[in-house]
Amino acid sequence: MRTTVGIVGGGPAGLLLARLLHRAGIDCVVLENRSRAYAERRQRAGMLEQGTVDVLRECGAGDRLDVEGLPHRGIELRFDRERHHIDFPTLTGGRGVMIYPQTEIVKDLIALQLAGGPPLLFEAEALAVESPLSDSPVVRYVHEGREQTLDCDYVVGCDGDHGVSRAAFPAGTYRTYAHDYPYSWLGILADVPPSGGELVYARGATGFALHSMRSTTVSRLYLQVPNGTDPDDWSDERIWDELAARFAVDGDWRLNRGTITAKSVTSLRSRVHEPMRHGRLLLAGDAAHIVPPTGAKGLNLAVSDVRVLARGLIELHRTGSTQLLDHYSQLCLDRVWQATRFSYDMTRMLHAQPDGDAFDHRIQLARLRRITTSRRAAAELAANYTGLPLGR
Amino acid sequence: MRTTVGIVGGGPAGLLLARLLHRAGIDCVVLENRSRAYAERRQRAGMLEQGTVDVLRECGAGDRLDVEGLPHRGIELRFDRERHHIDFPTLTGGRGVMIYPQTEIVKDLIALQLAGGPPLLFEAEALAVESPLSDSPVVRYVHEGREQTLDCDYVVGCDGDHGVSRAAFPAGTYRTYAHDYPYSWLGILADVPPSGGELVYARGATGFALHSMRSTTVSRLYLQVPNGTDPDDWSDERIWDELAARFAVDGDWRLNRGTITAKSVTSLRSRVHEPMRHGRLLLAGDAAHIVPPTGAKGLNLAVSDVRVLARGLIELHRTGSTQLLDHYSQLCLDRVWQATRFSYDMTRMLHAQPDGDAFDHRIQLARLRRITTSRRAAAELAANYTGLPLGR
Repeated sequence: MRTTVGIVGGGPAGLLLARLLHRAGIDCVVLENRSRAYAERRQRAGMLEQGTVDVLRECGAGDRLDVEGLPHRGIELRFDRERHHIDFPTLTGGRGVMIYPQTEIVKDLIALQLAGGPPLLFEAEALAVESPLSDSPVVRYVHEGREQTLDCDYVVGCDGDHGVSRAAFPAGTYRTYAHDYPYSWLGILADVPPSGGELVYARGATGFALHSMRSTTVSRLYLQVPNGTDPDDWSDERIWDELAARFAVDGDWRLNRGTITAKSVTSLRSRVHEPMRHGRLLLAGDAAHIVPPTGAKGLNLAVSDVRVLARGLIELHRTGSTQLLDHYSQLCLDRVWQATRFSYDMTRMLHAQPDGDAFDHRIQLARLRRITTSRRAAAELAANYTGLPLGR
Repeated sequence: MRTTVGIVGGGPAGLLLARLLHRAGIDCVVLENRSRAYAERRQRAGMLEQGTVDVLRECGAGDRLDVEGLPHRGIELRFDRERHHIDFPTLTGGRGVMIYPQTEIVKDLIALQLAGGPPLLFEAEALAVESPLSDSPVVRYVHEGREQTLDCDYVVGCDGDHGVSRAAFPAGTYRTYAHDYPYSWLGILADVPPSGGELVYARGATGFALHSMRSTTVSRLYLQVPNGTDPDDWSDERIWDELAARFAVDGDWRLNRGTITAKSVTSLRSRVHEPMRHGRLLLAGDAAHIVPPTGAKGLNLAVSDVRVLARGLIELHRTGSTQLLDHYSQLCLDRVWQATRFSYDMTRMLHAQPDGDAFDHRIQLARLRRITTSRRAAAELAANYTGLPLGR
């Protein structure tokens, strides 16, 4: 098979790129190694920056989002048993965020793609990206039990942290910046209405907790736990009790408890792979960078990579110029590092540091206090949270 | 001897407090364990926040400051061989800072005090503060070869980190929060005009350097060095070469070299002692808290403590109410922790971390880049640098 742009990975990054290219009249093929059912079930992030919402609407994938998404005008910071609302529109001149699960975006984009979009192959397992320095890179993959090749002008790796695309960068052509955090998140899904309308980021006395939601009837909650925690060591009762303790305030807020339908532990990591391009192979999203979930930047970064990349490929298609494409890595990485910094700072501000002392704890509280008493500091958080501007 | 307020320590905090109390008609006595000549020679900070300048003017100690002080409208951040001016008045609605050495403030305040102010005893070595929980605390001290006592209504400890005042807090009545940084500053004074009009905070490839000045003919420069560095291991030439390397930019900035007249190594520490009051003993300035010099908060924090304290003592004198005085510690500590946080963040943003990796370095650069590309982030730095508002 031959196409202009071969896209490895059918998550939100790959599907959105396909959508944007298709609308510009550029041929592409998406290879997804899982089944459609699996891809539509993957639970991931759910906080969309304004710019992410905008691009989904622009490309016709915003209809259900606009009906079912929950617009949020801020978050709540909770510490010292106090509640503080950070109001995004007031602080940013009108910007907000939207809660709409990534898995729903994937469903919407798959439906659009199957209804007349470019080819999307499920259970097409990419094996390798070859000849990225040539004019015609190749993706080798297995589909319907047979090894096949996809010949491309460009290959875009949207296949995440464990994909084959990044592995096609030869040693010495890239550098990986890495940070592992000394704690994990125990996350649950529960069939219970959210305990309030906003995301709550709590620095409880014993650690971090996050109150979030998937919909008006499903809550998503997280607890900071030590690395290596076995979720089975946490009974439902213990989880609810610990959440209640970390969210406790002086006042009448109450945590709604309900049936826990999923329970898992995730480690927190930061990764940046530089550059994001090797010849005609370009990486986007998790294939190039990972952020911890605090601040919910992962999906949004993937979308901003894809926007820059689509613009570059469209410019090439229309004018023959590779100028934008040649600066792809640099255009994305400024924003990637800012999101990496923001996620790192949010994470460190809110989690109990296992190796931290009383001084560190007071510095954390001073940071939180600054944000909740200074409009300037709150505005800086709001600007980062709702999303910094795209690279040119 | 008997007085209303016994002040232990004749540095800027003690002298300013004496001045403010004297003008309000409150008796006080200042005990300074060094000679006048020594006190007037001590080299310390030289960056005055707007609020510090204001209080010195208000109490009649601003005449020479207004002639000889160097008003600064910003600082320069330097990294990646780039120069970035952070303009305080534009970012803060008109606030700036003033360069005027602490040692000159001390001279001005001593001159005022000796010309009709309250008693100021030099070479009066405080031995102990006793009975702080009684109505009449006592300072025992040695003066002119004789042990004497100063009976007071209140004792204020302005005697720094190694003074006797803090030692009068019994075990269990306080807590100390401490952080030691894994690097020191090698500081020099040089008889050479400053290489530019502004303070330059540089994150050089091999570490931090600060360009500062004492006057139009004397430069003050600092280099990050490992803890335990012997200043004698640094020849003048090596110092100038390393400074030149860390300040190097793409462009035509040049470091002026000249005769080095003083050279010393200082470790960087953060300390907060809580509470700042025990009965009728109150601490102010370095006696209660230490910050690293990055951001120049030490003197300014001492002045803001003294302003709150003077207000409390004056309220008591005029109305008999101890209400303000009773909240002294709490009123100061909010601001102390904000300055502690700011100094810690500035320090960590600008110094090479000996145990840091490439990820940490890139996070530092992302922080600097954010400040130099976002008005919001720059405004937050400017607000902290020029000084947060006093406690009520």
